[in-house]
Amino acid sequence: MTIDPTERLLELRRSIDNFDAALIHILAERFRCTQAVGKLKAEFDMPPADHDREARQVERLRKLAEEAGLDTNFAETFLNFIIKEVIRHHEAFRHEAETK
Amino acid sequence: MTIDPTERLLELRRSIDNFDAALIHILAERFRCTQAVGKLKAEFDMPPADHDREARQVERLRKLAEEAGLDTNFAETFLNFIIKEVIRHHEAFRHEAETK
Repeated sequence: MTIDPTERLLELRRSIDNFDAALIHILAERFRCTQAVGKLKAEFDMPPADHDREARQVERLRKLAEEAGLDTNFAETFLNFIIKEVIRHHEAFRHEAETK
Repeated sequence: MTIDPTERLLELRRSIDNFDAALIHILAERFRCTQAVGKLKAEFDMPPADHDREARQVERLRKLAEEAGLDTNFAETFLNFIIKEVIRHHEAFRHEAETK
């Protein structure tokens, strides 16, 4: 079987584009959840950070990454990247609530 | 309707955990594709970078993010974060091929 490298490249890129669309939509929904968490915590005066929860998340994601053949350190960096954005949202939300 | 904030928090966290598992698995599959791209490009001596393709990806993801209610700048930062990891893989792969 001969392969046409240009055609094969296009095919792989179509998959990558589909995965990217899936990632964007799941991320959008994940941020909807964390925004609901932020609102809930603010409303019921619950502590904003939960380090035990974060440690459990890291542990779980590293395990899932290992099973899926994804670099475990990358998975942890990825989670931290997302959490940083969540914190940015929470701060913006708090700032908005305070200046109302 | 009264809500139990602790129960509601647990419920939201269950969704977040499910989304995280989905993200990890999709990322693992996306890297499988980019690794196949790297191998293909090396084998057929195709140029490693394609800036037109990258610009189209950014444009498309920003549009998808906007439709999904996700911060468009975050979507772009996210794509760059992923691409950085892809480049790291490609460099490791090239290094491995060269030292064989």
